[in-house]
Amino acid sequence: MRGSDSQAAPMPATAIPHVFSRYRSDIRAGLKAAFPDSTAPLYDMLRYHLGWQDEQGRAADANVGKEVRPALCLFACEAVGGTKEQALPPAVAIELIHNFSLIHDDIQDGDTERRHRKTVWYIWGQSHGINAGDAMHALGNLALLDTNPGALPPQRRLEISRILTRASLEMIEGQVLDLTFERRPSVRVDDYLTMIDKKTGALLEASLHMGAVAAAADPSTVEAMRLFGKGLGLLFQVRDDMLGVWGAQDKTGKPAAGDIHRRKKSLPIVYALAHAEGASRDRMLAIYRSDRPLQEGDVHDVLAVLDEVRAAAYCTGLAREHAERSMATLAPVHLSAAARAEFADLVQFLMDREH
Amino acid sequence: MRGSDSQAAPMPATAIPHVFSRYRSDIRAGLKAAFPDSTAPLYDMLRYHLGWQDEQGRAADANVGKEVRPALCLFACEAVGGTKEQALPPAVAIELIHNFSLIHDDIQDGDTERRHRKTVWYIWGQSHGINAGDAMHALGNLALLDTNPGALPPQRRLEISRILTRASLEMIEGQVLDLTFERRPSVRVDDYLTMIDKKTGALLEASLHMGAVAAAADPSTVEAMRLFGKGLGLLFQVRDDMLGVWGAQDKTGKPAAGDIHRRKKSLPIVYALAHAEGASRDRMLAIYRSDRPLQEGDVHDVLAVLDEVRAAAYCTGLAREHAERSMATLAPVHLSAAARAEFADLVQFLMDREH
Repeated sequence: MRGSDSQAAPMPATAIPHVFSRYRSDIRAGLKAAFPDSTAPLYDMLRYHLGWQDEQGRAADANVGKEVRPALCLFACEAVGGTKEQALPPAVAIELIHNFSLIHDDIQDGDTERRHRKTVWYIWGQSHGINAGDAMHALGNLALLDTNPGALPPQRRLEISRILTRASLEMIEGQVLDLTFERRPSVRVDDYLTMIDKKTGALLEASLHMGAVAAAADPSTVEAMRLFGKGLGLLFQVRDDMLGVWGAQDKTGKPAAGDIHRRKKSLPIVYALAHAEGASRDRMLAIYRSDRPLQEGDVHDVLAVLDEVRAAAYCTGLAREHAERSMATLAPVHLSAAARAEFADLVQFLMDREH
Repeated sequence: MRGSDSQAAPMPATAIPHVFSRYRSDIRAGLKAAFPDSTAPLYDMLRYHLGWQDEQGRAADANVGKEVRPALCLFACEAVGGTKEQALPPAVAIELIHNFSLIHDDIQDGDTERRHRKTVWYIWGQSHGINAGDAMHALGNLALLDTNPGALPPQRRLEISRILTRASLEMIEGQVLDLTFERRPSVRVDDYLTMIDKKTGALLEASLHMGAVAAAADPSTVEAMRLFGKGLGLLFQVRDDMLGVWGAQDKTGKPAAGDIHRRKKSLPIVYALAHAEGASRDRMLAIYRSDRPLQEGDVHDVLAVLDEVRAAAYCTGLAREHAERSMATLAPVHLSAAARAEFADLVQFLMDREH
């Protein structure tokens, strides 16, 4: 199937940028410190979700998220002259907020597994899944409010809380749009981009924005980092959507063409539904309006239509456009040569990543 | 059935204290101002839940909550020398947080109606119900962070945010305990009281606590108001539990003995399960361990056991004890005679209310 996709973008092996590993131990320590020292069953669910405990409450160290958002927050803060200590409270907070959204998403999507582990709701039931997400949401806010007062003065901490809370709300707006779109026969490409700008983009934008505010950077630097983060969010999601269709199973750990099998209206599909004509359009609509499980032949046909409308080239072009715009945003910002190179690596990685 | 309950506390008609109506228009205006000027479908769900819109999005003015928490926050602030302007941000915030919990509770309990209107999840589905609650949660936090900077300096606003967020987390801990208890054959009275202290008490405590902090009251006054609020929370819930068993349908608007029909393990039942002996105990356990719908005979038997163990007297005594302790907490606080009388009325009302 993958072979028939003559048009998909090349996917070179790309090294994971150092920013995603450099802060790992700080982030882990910060996350653990954000947890109350409580044996209440609520916190067992949260620790399980974060990979620190197994289902029975025994200590574990499961492979969990890439911690992209806190790493970007810390990196942005240091790049514009701040310290790790300043950015750690918002970094921890945004990782917890991201995880609150994952716990609730899993309920909404009916997903029983996340990264090869059972989801919280699947183990403890939907009601406790709702509670676990709610608690992670509150803990995220608290991580920012409740920490040592040294690193961030009150006014700055308040400003960061405002950014985080507005971003959380925007993410939820995006989630509502996403669920609404899944039930519609077709979605405009622009509406889809607005949705991912909120659902994925809001927290990535906030990560870099908060990092710059934590560093007390000047207003034009703060604004540049915010816009750069916004661009990263789009890049990140466009690539995610491409991998869901054209990604290799041995790289992504997910079934090939998984998003087609799930009839997910991701960017390539939304684009094809808008641009296919004649028999191809009829075939796409028939497949996406039906309820019966997709057959291999259907998946093959969808991939063929994506080829026909050059959906991969469209996605790659859109990603490249945003990558260039993001780098241009950074041009006037005062950065060390090393930091600027790392930002460029980051953008390149998000464009090319295979998992 | 009500007639057979020879032992239930007398329920005199009690006037609703003025504190619950005095601030109504301020609270409504504050709540409306906390909403973004957005036509996104998400906000239609929230406005519906608050009674401002009907299902179709047309303006409405439905009978919604009593707005107890914001009224107490405003009252506490003024009573200790603050202004309405200072307390309005936390008052609005806590009402939104309370409503987030109601939206999620309705999903968890499978309730299809709240105050004679369909619940959010019942109209829009569970997934959107989860989103609506999440958004109300974020909006509540934002109401405190995002308002005009005049009334509260940053340090105080941060301190109030911390109180609110800790209380939200405690409320969620209580909700987890409540759901856990519902699945257990029996619950210790002390564990039940811990649960309501969190589930109901945390936000009521925070209402008065935040009001006093908003007024920049001295630490001993702040602590007294916090403890008073904690006592009110227990009073409020104990009376709620009594009304769910012995309340009159024409007063509460809910079916008589509704909590018995629903097998809700509220305080009278928890107490009876712990104190009944012999055949009465066996009968209670048989009824509360079974899954089949309760018959009138079962309800009659439960009420008879409650009489036998003097459950109503226990509840009334517990409420009275906390009422007295709450009033004693206020004794050293500097209050006008009028304010002190209003606090006393409030406690009396919460003890005696019939709806």
